Amino acid sequence: MNQQYSSALLERAVDEFAKLPGIGRKTAMRLVLHMLRLDTDKVDTFSQAISTLRHEVNYCRVCHNISDEDICQICSNPSRVSSQICVVENIQDVMAIEQTQQYRGLYHVLGGVISPMDGVGPSELEIASLVDRVSQGGVEEVILALSSTMEGDTTNFFISRKLAKYPEVKLTVLARGMSINDELQYTDEVTLGRSLVNRVPFSA
Amino acid sequence: MNQQYSSALLERAVDEFAKLPGIGRKTAMRLVLHMLRLDTDKVDTFSQAISTLRHEVNYCRVCHNISDEDICQICSNPSRVSSQICVVENIQDVMAIEQTQQYRGLYHVLGGVISPMDGVGPSELEIASLVDRVSQGGVEEVILALSSTMEGDTTNFFISRKLAKYPEVKLTVLARGMSINDELQYTDEVTLGRSLVNRVPFSA
Repeated sequence: MNQQYSSALLERAVDEFAKLPGIGRKTAMRLVLHMLRLDTDKVDTFSQAISTLRHEVNYCRVCHNISDEDICQICSNPSRVSSQICVVENIQDVMAIEQTQQYRGLYHVLGGVISPMDGVGPSELEIASLVDRVSQGGVEEVILALSSTMEGDTTNFFISRKLAKYPEVKLTVLARGMSINDELQYTDEVTLGRSLVNRVPFSA
Repeated sequence: MNQQYSSALLERAVDEFAKLPGIGRKTAMRLVLHMLRLDTDKVDTFSQAISTLRHEVNYCRVCHNISDEDICQICSNPSRVSSQICVVENIQDVMAIEQTQQYRGLYHVLGGVISPMDGVGPSELEIASLVDRVSQGGVEEVILALSSTMEGDTTNFFISRKLAKYPEVKLTVLARGMSINDELQYTDEVTLGRSLVNRVPFSA
């Protein structure tokens, strides 16, 4: 036991919190001391929620979004537009797009992007299952909503090649440009250039 | 279930993390997704460490520091100077002082300071047990190492009154002054004044 801690139980709990990303030992200590001040049943609720999630987590068989059912609520919702598939990297992206309330189609969660540096190849991602979905017909548009990084672009290119045998399926990417409220003079040149090239008709 | 989350288990875990102090919903989500990528047994280790700590936590019967035994390793260490008691607010303070390696006496953890605004009176703190320790004799010095706030000063005053019937016990407080490396011109006037008043002989 580290001399600094007067309790091995305390040290172990701090160690565990400090393993989480972005949490150092001081923050871990603060969180553990907060736990100590809580009622026992509240701490049990916390630890059980984490444990239960990990044990019972399930991913949608169709789109690979996290889901408590075999098929997620988006995929099983008859009022969603099933001819549109938006391809995203992870489940946070699904949540971000859902919050815009601008999209009524379905999703496909890849689980990342192709990144040889990190040892992530196409077979680690849900690309085969995407091609499978498209091959079953009924898909009119695949929206590639990946990061505009080299890895994202590589993944876009790889998917576009895989889907080339379905020319009836329209491939689109998200519009890139200045953010709403961005000031022109402070926008980076690549983004500003893209905003100019992709300019749209003015509507009052 | 919030529309944003596609899994009630996910939402519950995020809710639980977001209850922790200084952790918002975005950070909570990031931590939960990290948990999902870990092996099941690592997540179990985490949740068990937290739960076990809360269930089996124990405080030293003498000094009220957190401890796995009935009497903590500091109080039961025969090489510590048992005639000195350093009074601190909480267990982090004990750890901070231990890390300086400048103190060989014992501790007394009050559990806070007197703060009528927060509903903390003397009876909520371990003051009676401190007086009890002193009354048993053998104590030569009580070091009041509380915050130099109004609440800390009030608590110091309260304790000094309670210990007034033991005039043989020396009451001391921590030296206050400029930090090591502080620049004189940027030091606040109260601290600089205190540094001047409490100046010590120069030793090369």
